[in-house]
Amino acid sequence: MRHFVVIGQSADGTGDFSIEDLPGSSGRLDVLLRCVRAALLVSHGLRKDALVHLILRGGSAGARILRIGGPSAKFLRPDERSLATLVKKTLAACPTPAPETYAELRPGLFLRAGDLPQLLPETGGAPCFVLHEGAPDLREVAAPGRAAWFFIGDHSGLDAAALALLDRHGARRVSIGPVSLHSDDVVAIVSNELDRLESTRGAEAGS
Amino acid sequence: MRHFVVIGQSADGTGDFSIEDLPGSSGRLDVLLRCVRAALLVSHGLRKDALVHLILRGGSAGARILRIGGPSAKFLRPDERSLATLVKKTLAACPTPAPETYAELRPGLFLRAGDLPQLLPETGGAPCFVLHEGAPDLREVAAPGRAAWFFIGDHSGLDAAALALLDRHGARRVSIGPVSLHSDDVVAIVSNELDRLESTRGAEAGS
Repeated sequence: MRHFVVIGQSADGTGDFSIEDLPGSSGRLDVLLRCVRAALLVSHGLRKDALVHLILRGGSAGARILRIGGPSAKFLRPDERSLATLVKKTLAACPTPAPETYAELRPGLFLRAGDLPQLLPETGGAPCFVLHEGAPDLREVAAPGRAAWFFIGDHSGLDAAALALLDRHGARRVSIGPVSLHSDDVVAIVSNELDRLESTRGAEAGS
Repeated sequence: MRHFVVIGQSADGTGDFSIEDLPGSSGRLDVLLRCVRAALLVSHGLRKDALVHLILRGGSAGARILRIGGPSAKFLRPDERSLATLVKKTLAACPTPAPETYAELRPGLFLRAGDLPQLLPETGGAPCFVLHEGAPDLREVAAPGRAAWFFIGDHSGLDAAALALLDRHGARRVSIGPVSLHSDDVVAIVSNELDRLESTRGAEAGS
């Protein structure tokens, strides 16, 4: 399973936003929803080997972690409005999520209370990478393996506290080229790199 | 200038669609709008060296070419609803576009009547590439250069007539990895490859 964690500094975690004005009313949840599409949806299909963890720090009720994907995921559509509607209903259905366990509120959509410190133990020692401008190129670092975790900021980037926490956790900083890109493009490019690595490994294993 | 051409087999070219149901009412124009974002928008900025040509074959009035980007482009926002609203207004403002010349209807948005045969002369001998599954990897082919054109299908792929026309035009088929991806992810990955090539060329020229 590959993991993407996107930290939404102001993204609403309560469902209290307008589908008609997502950028203006949701704390830029739209940025995170585009990451969900890029991580999970491929041409006419859904990646079953990918999970997205959205850390939603906006709203008045404390940070939440919305996990999307995996074997049970269904009904995900690529357009922003459909994804926003699904996430809004999911968040609104659980105003007080539990702090330690995920509730599966819709197929493949799981919610808990928590922030990065509560999420990190879930990595269970798997290799962790932070997307960071100017860091060594992902193509040059050791192959990240199938179970790697990738941590990505939203439009406002990763905050210093999150970076320090990830450093202490042993996450390696990597970059994906010379231009600073939207978070969803970062997810698409990392996914492509992982697809290529897995394809090469598969070919080598089969030869 | 880098060019992306996305052929929308059924995408509406008249503006007669609902913002509230883009996938269901616009002939999947949403797929093409996501390509516009991926080609033109980067973190807190707009690529001035990229143009997107959307071939809109849907609607009752014949195919149109909507060109977006370049030095005059402004007011492009990344969320689908904003992009759809902008494109809807632009298309509706010009019910009978001219067949040979572009009208700039909004800053950086140009419209003409026409389809692929009318667009190809605009390439002016620049290198052309068709994104096609199973073709040689873009990373392995000769560097495409700054002025290359990339032709991409929508969710239903490129039709046989378009592929034949592009073959006759000398366009080279290339792929970007082992998994069949959404068109906007293809645009993001090709853009990243071009960014890397240009950065390498820049470093070599400066060394």
